[in-house]
Amino acid sequence: MFRTEFTIEWGDCDEAGVVFYPNYFYWFDCTFQRLLRDRGLNQRELKRRFSAVTPLVEVGAKFRAPASYDDVLRVEAHVEAWETKRFRMMYKLSVEDRLVAEGFEVRAWANIDASGRMSGRPVEEAFKSLMQ
Amino acid sequence: MFRTEFTIEWGDCDEAGVVFYPNYFYWFDCTFQRLLRDRGLNQRELKRRFSAVTPLVEVGAKFRAPASYDDVLRVEAHVEAWETKRFRMMYKLSVEDRLVAEGFEVRAWANIDASGRMSGRPVEEAFKSLMQ
Amino acid sequence: MFRTEFTIEWGDCDEAGVVFYPNYFYWFDCTFQRLLRDRGLNQRELKRRFSAVTPLVEVGAKFRAPASYDDVLRVEAHVEAWETKRFRMMYKLSVEDRLVAEGFEVRAWANIDASGRMSGRPVEEAFKSLMQ
Amino acid sequence: MFRTEFTIEWGDCDEAGVVFYPNYFYWFDCTFQRLLRDRGLNQRELKRRFSAVTPLVEVGAKFRAPASYDDVLRVEAHVEAWETKRFRMMYKLSVEDRLVAEGFEVRAWANIDASGRMSGRPVEEAFKSLMQ
Repeated sequence: MFRTEFTIEWGDCDEAGVVFYPNYFYWFDCTFQRLLRDRGLNQRELKRRFSAVTPLVEVGAKFRAPASYDDVLRVEAHVEAWETKRFRMMYKLSVEDRLVAEGFEVRAWANIDASGRMSGRPVEEAFKSLMQ
Repeated sequence: MFRTEFTIEWGDCDEAGVVFYPNYFYWFDCTFQRLLRDRGLNQRELKRRFSAVTPLVEVGAKFRAPASYDDVLRVEAHVEAWETKRFRMMYKLSVEDRLVAEGFEVRAWANIDASGRMSGRPVEEAFKSLMQ
Repeated sequence: MFRTEFTIEWGDCDEAGVVFYPNYFYWFDCTFQRLLRDRGLNQRELKRRFSAVTPLVEVGAKFRAPASYDDVLRVEAHVEAWETKRFRMMYKLSVEDRLVAEGFEVRAWANIDASGRMSGRPVEEAFKSLMQ
Repeated sequence: MFRTEFTIEWGDCDEAGVVFYPNYFYWFDCTFQRLLRDRGLNQRELKRRFSAVTPLVEVGAKFRAPASYDDVLRVEAHVEAWETKRFRMMYKLSVEDRLVAEGFEVRAWANIDASGRMSGRPVEEAFKSLMQ
């Protein structure tokens, strides 16, 4: 389980005083990037080492309780499932003991060729090992 | 079917040159607000007329093809289902004839009392009629 | 004078019910991109035709009156001054007859060489003519 | 001098691979909020204790060097000047030893009356002491 946290900022909330919901996906993505970094990777390193990118295929979230300005959002993330050409990230966001949101990202493993065309490929074992 | 469109701006894309995905949810939300407006409503009017807000319960999206800077995103939206205390919005986003993304929002119908507490209520018939 | 407009969306405002101010700069940048497009250009075309980019050197804004959700922001923009290696864009934002904000962007004219290094260059006359 | 830092995230950069500039103002605002918090304040506490808000009057920034994905942005902030009804915040952003951006915010000290009208007031001495 990878853990990180974010402080909810003034600009992240809407007129109703709660998080404007697209920001939850920004935090999912940030968490994924931080997890990569924690494993010695990042988007550029993925390209250099594996010639790979991880485009989003599907995402979703359930909102359990509101969160607002100054709350510290604790995030737990892990790879829930590896399929041949894609993997599923799970995210759980809490403020203190309150579950705020749960969500997922399905990301593909893809190569970009010289002409810029992307094509799905089986996820590299070396990447799987690093992310476990 | 409600239709609107957005031009994808420079700042909406990431280093890979495609839309940074949380922005799709920003456009879902904007489309919902524009639909309200088209029916003579908005968040303040919902509060004034129905003492109601429409908090998000669950959202999701599938990404079908990349879109980038300067593309005109055409959005089709409609209420797909009415449940007693919630409703489900569907969104379909295309660039020219290319389907780019599909998604949904499940929104609750809730009252906010004087102390700021939110509680679910059956969706008002008058609201349903306006949104049909 | 180039004119465009934006509808202020729910997600653009903060808990105080007014525009979260960094969004004004998002609209400045969008307006610049729309102006380029109006002249048959965009960032990719600038690169292709002139091997040039227009990085920001300095920006600023004065906020005259609040604006909020559902307001239609009318923007007027023009090139206020051409210097040898940079130019100054001016933006004026109004809602109905109310001046909301005024701002500027100073943009450099720069080439990116094969190694990715950026270096300032005199602004091309062909670009100046298109932007007048 | 108040110090804080931000990691530049994937979604904060544009197609050119550098920070999309409105985000610098997001970080200025976040830094101001963190400074308030450091002094036992926040927007709600300002309202509760002083019936005050701090609306933006003018802002600006100079960009000295590009910054991108994964860079850690170190921010130094302080109140540069107190005027009767406003104050000027200064921000300096660096990545390692490289100055990336410098900027300022002029914020007013204002009361909001029962009808929602805002009016400028002399900055409270108690607030000044806390922010020094």
